Amino acid sequence: MAISRRKVCCSFLSDVFLTYSTVKVVQVPNTLIAIVYRLIQLIIFAYIALYIVWLKQGYQQFQEPRGTSIIKVKGIAKVAGNETIRFVHADQTHLWDTAEYQMPPLENNAFFITTRQIVTYDQTEGDCPSALEDKLFCNSSESDVCPAGQPTPNTFGYFTGNCVPTFENASINVCEIHAWCPEELSQSTQFIMNKDDMENFTIYLKTMVTFTLFNINLRNVRDATNFTCRYHKDNDPHCPILRIGDILDSLNTNKSALLREGGLIEIRQDWTCNFDFHKDYCFPKLEFNVLQSGDDKLSPGINYRSAQKYRINGTEYRTLSKIYGLRFIVAISGKGGKFDIVNLFVAIGSGIGFMVIADIVCDAIFMYIHKYRERYRQGKINVCVISSDEENSDGNLTSILAMQKE
Amino acid sequence: MAISRRKVCCSFLSDVFLTYSTVKVVQVPNTLIAIVYRLIQLIIFAYIALYIVWLKQGYQQFQEPRGTSIIKVKGIAKVAGNETIRFVHADQTHLWDTAEYQMPPLENNAFFITTRQIVTYDQTEGDCPSALEDKLFCNSSESDVCPAGQPTPNTFGYFTGNCVPTFENASINVCEIHAWCPEELSQSTQFIMNKDDMENFTIYLKTMVTFTLFNINLRNVRDATNFTCRYHKDNDPHCPILRIGDILDSLNTNKSALLREGGLIEIRQDWTCNFDFHKDYCFPKLEFNVLQSGDDKLSPGINYRSAQKYRINGTEYRTLSKIYGLRFIVAISGKGGKFDIVNLFVAIGSGIGFMVIADIVCDAIFMYIHKYRERYRQGKINVCVISSDEENSDGNLTSILAMQKE
Amino acid sequence: MAISRRKVCCSFLSDVFLTYSTVKVVQVPNTLIAIVYRLIQLIIFAYIALYIVWLKQGYQQFQEPRGTSIIKVKGIAKVAGNETIRFVHADQTHLWDTAEYQMPPLENNAFFITTRQIVTYDQTEGDCPSALEDKLFCNSSESDVCPAGQPTPNTFGYFTGNCVPTFENASINVCEIHAWCPEELSQSTQFIMNKDDMENFTIYLKTMVTFTLFNINLRNVRDATNFTCRYHKDNDPHCPILRIGDILDSLNTNKSALLREGGLIEIRQDWTCNFDFHKDYCFPKLEFNVLQSGDDKLSPGINYRSAQKYRINGTEYRTLSKIYGLRFIVAISGKGGKFDIVNLFVAIGSGIGFMVIADIVCDAIFMYIHKYRERYRQGKINVCVISSDEENSDGNLTSILAMQKE
Repeated sequence: MAISRRKVCCSFLSDVFLTYSTVKVVQVPNTLIAIVYRLIQLIIFAYIALYIVWLKQGYQQFQEPRGTSIIKVKGIAKVAGNETIRFVHADQTHLWDTAEYQMPPLENNAFFITTRQIVTYDQTEGDCPSALEDKLFCNSSESDVCPAGQPTPNTFGYFTGNCVPTFENASINVCEIHAWCPEELSQSTQFIMNKDDMENFTIYLKTMVTFTLFNINLRNVRDATNFTCRYHKDNDPHCPILRIGDILDSLNTNKSALLREGGLIEIRQDWTCNFDFHKDYCFPKLEFNVLQSGDDKLSPGINYRSAQKYRINGTEYRTLSKIYGLRFIVAISGKGGKFDIVNLFVAIGSGIGFMVIADIVCDAIFMYIHKYRERYRQGKINVCVISSDEENSDGNLTSILAMQKE
Repeated sequence: MAISRRKVCCSFLSDVFLTYSTVKVVQVPNTLIAIVYRLIQLIIFAYIALYIVWLKQGYQQFQEPRGTSIIKVKGIAKVAGNETIRFVHADQTHLWDTAEYQMPPLENNAFFITTRQIVTYDQTEGDCPSALEDKLFCNSSESDVCPAGQPTPNTFGYFTGNCVPTFENASINVCEIHAWCPEELSQSTQFIMNKDDMENFTIYLKTMVTFTLFNINLRNVRDATNFTCRYHKDNDPHCPILRIGDILDSLNTNKSALLREGGLIEIRQDWTCNFDFHKDYCFPKLEFNVLQSGDDKLSPGINYRSAQKYRINGTEYRTLSKIYGLRFIVAISGKGGKFDIVNLFVAIGSGIGFMVIADIVCDAIFMYIHKYRERYRQGKINVCVISSDEENSDGNLTSILAMQKE
Repeated sequence: MAISRRKVCCSFLSDVFLTYSTVKVVQVPNTLIAIVYRLIQLIIFAYIALYIVWLKQGYQQFQEPRGTSIIKVKGIAKVAGNETIRFVHADQTHLWDTAEYQMPPLENNAFFITTRQIVTYDQTEGDCPSALEDKLFCNSSESDVCPAGQPTPNTFGYFTGNCVPTFENASINVCEIHAWCPEELSQSTQFIMNKDDMENFTIYLKTMVTFTLFNINLRNVRDATNFTCRYHKDNDPHCPILRIGDILDSLNTNKSALLREGGLIEIRQDWTCNFDFHKDYCFPKLEFNVLQSGDDKLSPGINYRSAQKYRINGTEYRTLSKIYGLRFIVAISGKGGKFDIVNLFVAIGSGIGFMVIADIVCDAIFMYIHKYRERYRQGKINVCVISSDEENSDGNLTSILAMQKE
């Protein structure tokens, strides 16, 4: 029979607003299955509540901190200086204080401590023989090993094309170069910092971090901090004053190579905070890693060159320093977590979705495995033939049986 | 009756592919409950749609920006210089331009403005009495207060073991030290920058940020930017030119201490962008915080030492500067949000899960509270006894009742 | 009939623990709808499994890397120096090696290469005429254009109030200034680096990144790395040695302006890693962007000033350098993804929620559209009148019909 659209619509409305529809339920008095069913539900629930929400903190929102450090290095060291190559003098000792060994003096979340320095005094632009170490040997007759105007392999200067005796040994001929002379390798003074003095240096590390998401600011230095302390992994993990020696000892690396060739050391400050508790309970954990060791197979150590210029009656001179040292990087990492309604909501909501598993499993057992499956099917299933198509007789069969039962 | 596995399997297939299974529904013509039911559903829906998805932007994916700043400081200041300690001269005034007060001259997302400088000229390595301020008093007889070879407490040098009169006052004996002499504290010149001149300095702050996730680049300086502007929180929040004085005034800190001892100031540039709109609508908000004030109880201010070396006929001399100043850090924070299908999907999907709450609640009412609960149970529940176990008679009872009704 | 609370409670318990409740199902033998139903389910499933979980990696947790770079610039360049303004000399050529052009010599994830330098020698504090270029023309009679004590527009000094002839041309009067004299613009030497030499410079870029979340460390330099290589986008994308010329060529910018005015270039190292595979498969991709070009309409180029002080019998002198150059920033970006149970769980769980769509759709078809909808409703719906209210007769009607059928 045909029904007007209006009829359909109002039947729909009555379904929705005037009558409460609920699913018809079949109760099977079977304790075993009932227990199984509840058990599966329990497992799923426990999994959501305990693992996802609690352990993995599915109810929290996370952010990594951003921070800045103020670093002060304190200490003085004796330095052994000796003129290398060419002339050998008696060693003299020198003194390096912070102003001498910490350069650049001000950096952002990093600092550098010079451990070795090779200084070449009074360099000026001109022509001079290349150093023996460069191994640019030639003999005056054929000078094609010194192609004029070409940069030298170490890029310290350009070949003049001439072949001249070295400073070090007049009997050996090498290519002449146009460069800042004398060349670093042929005449320079080396300064080496005393290892023991250096290990007694202390670092004062003051950090301020921000978790913008939660609008929380934290410092590693609190009012309670005692400035006579020394950082120790276990005994005093919150102390902001670190002894270089302790850091180096905690590193698994070749220390003498590190001090000779320099290296890159990361001071990782890990701020893992749970801001559902009070922020003052959160202190950073320190970790030390060698990012670049002194005996690394590939380009070991760290060094850089810096020149200081000066003029004597119009000619420019410079003092060239090749500086080896320990570069420390303060890396701020970690994550702060705080309750977030969205994450909790999503975790639970999707958990509910999983509950259907229990139904599916138990149903499957009854429908296809249980020895009384037929009776169960009859109880659970009604067949309602709405059209005259005669496919799937089996379906009809069950329906007829079903009707007989009622 | 036993059925072959084949039978089971094909009955399963017919269930799945030939017949459409739907739950049998019981309609209860009860407007009240119906309304309650729909209401609960509505609330859940509204919660998902409005709060989770809309307000908390559950449909967006977020990323924090990464950026770089180019900073130019402009301004000139008069500087009062006077020799402290030992000799007192008439003050002379000096001039500091950018090259004098901004050191290091080039930094990454940071800059430093010198406000005070203590310079010690012509230091050289040698022995000299420690400064009065060090309070290393001794008397020549017992020199165990000056343990030879030990570093001094301030780590400026080593004790020689001798006890000598100070520069400042010949009648007072102090420990002699081997250090860079004269010591900073016993003879140095202090330069103090004029506060008013300094407050008129301007900073030009140009930032480029990237949201790699959305492949979006942004600048705070746009074609529309007018370079005669001055930043003002309310009147001109997009202007890239800031007056130092304005920044200092906006800070809640002791300004004179800040200028005397130095401090660390954070210029936070907050890029909170909704990239579902056009990126040009997104401008950064500026915030200024004192991370390290000049009168901080724990290690106030910021200062560092830098030395300039020079040689006069072979001996090394240096000019030591202790530099106090304002260190500005440009911190780039914020988050860009953009529509993300996964997040939306998850939010809705888990929302649907919550809908079952409505059923559970209404069902509970009918099954256990409503005064016609018995009739409801009979209407809703069929009992299907599939085994011969006689437990839970009550279950059977209802089933019998149910059968009577039908 | 009234039931004691105890009765209710135990009936609840028996429902929960002694009997297994499942929904009563109505099977409609209708292949078409059955297929439609399964199809919708399949689509939803495919969408979750393939798109959300697989393509959008909904099963992974992501983190952005943090890293540090060690950068070494190698190369030597010829430099043309000529005295600008006032005296014109024959050009001399100079040599710049790393120590000359890379300043500051050590930076964090950045480096600077000087391409042009304007040096003013022997500046000292005093009074001198402003430079012609400043265009501070005046005439001795009315000196209100030179307000005594006011800073000059370029903030190089203060007006003395006098009006004096310029150095450059005695017939032109300009304001006299109290500043570091001579002024940069009126007498200085310019050094310009040879473009071709400069393009042959090489950068050695060594990066270590950390994904703290997964506790994974990575380097771009591996044991396999061959140090004779040159980076090339396609041929050798993993080589850590880059030629400056290649970088510049890959940029879409005015190169000569860049070298003359300086600029900011970003070397973006993109670490996009899937740590469900072995971490060694992950190499960074390099990208080069101009953040600040040499011909930018708004404040082009990059330059900074640095002064070197020295004293000649008590008077302070300085050498002022205005330094133009290429500033390179090494930006480390990307994201590492790793399997995360929470994310996978949430994605699937919320997916299940969507399955109900299939039921809703098919049900709607049968209930309101299908031509046998009435028969379907009778088969699917039981009406259970629990109260004596006579509203919604239609509901009752169907119930009566339903009863007749049974």
